[in-house]
Amino acid sequence: MLGSDYEGQDCSVARTLELVGERWTLLIIRDAFLGRRRFEEFQESLGIARNVLTDRLGKLVDHGIFERVRYQERPERYEYRLTEKGYDLRLALGALMQWGDEHLSPTPPRKLRRTSDATPVRVAFVGVDGEPVAPRDVENVPA
Amino acid sequence: MLGSDYEGQDCSVARTLELVGERWTLLIIRDAFLGRRRFEEFQESLGIARNVLTDRLGKLVDHGIFERVRYQERPERYEYRLTEKGYDLRLALGALMQWGDEHLSPTPPRKLRRTSDATPVRVAFVGVDGEPVAPRDVENVPA
Repeated sequence: MLGSDYEGQDCSVARTLELVGERWTLLIIRDAFLGRRRFEEFQESLGIARNVLTDRLGKLVDHGIFERVRYQERPERYEYRLTEKGYDLRLALGALMQWGDEHLSPTPPRKLRRTSDATPVRVAFVGVDGEPVAPRDVENVPA
Repeated sequence: MLGSDYEGQDCSVARTLELVGERWTLLIIRDAFLGRRRFEEFQESLGIARNVLTDRLGKLVDHGIFERVRYQERPERYEYRLTEKGYDLRLALGALMQWGDEHLSPTPPRKLRRTSDATPVRVAFVGVDGEPVAPRDVENVPA
């Protein structure tokens, strides 16, 4: 699963970055969460070189984070949809966004809220009882 | 705050990646959470080129994620400690680790637990009432 870059790093963070740590990849996934699905939409939003976008989308499909779905027959056109596996990255993106909001963006441009009642949502550590746990009370130990 | 790479991306995810999205940077921060503080410790753990490590540590200090602290006078030796701002990345790293555990690592090598009672801890969306919110019930809207 590991490529040559982080080889020898037996760690789920390293394995995750091996897949989504390339430049632009997490921003493509962010765009997908914002509703973008088509090559032209990603390209316009990100302003990156088309060959780079092609490469990143291809890898994301190979790794099962996006699926490539035909939405038009003549001419054939495809769009990119997040799989369940891709959708599960939402929490990590939410945590990165929250850190940026707190430390880098005096006026955060976007916010997370609960769809059902429009109340604010944040990312947090929670215990087995479902209660929030303070970061200082969390330790990372061998499994 | 934005460099040339993600310029024009008015987004806290993009700003965050501008600081921590370079190759190796998040793994250096992960190492810091695992207790590593000295150049040699990072270098041995990651096995990366020394000039790359020097560059990354320097940028992390410049951005206030690490502070460089002298721990010995003769000869002078320094170590790198996470600041509060750096420590706050714990949640994002926890979320990346959790995704890797769920989707990439059949036997996760490490786990998060609550220090006070050794019970499992996970990363989740939480509402204002402190209750977990399902990811499908979270929306990202303009602030």
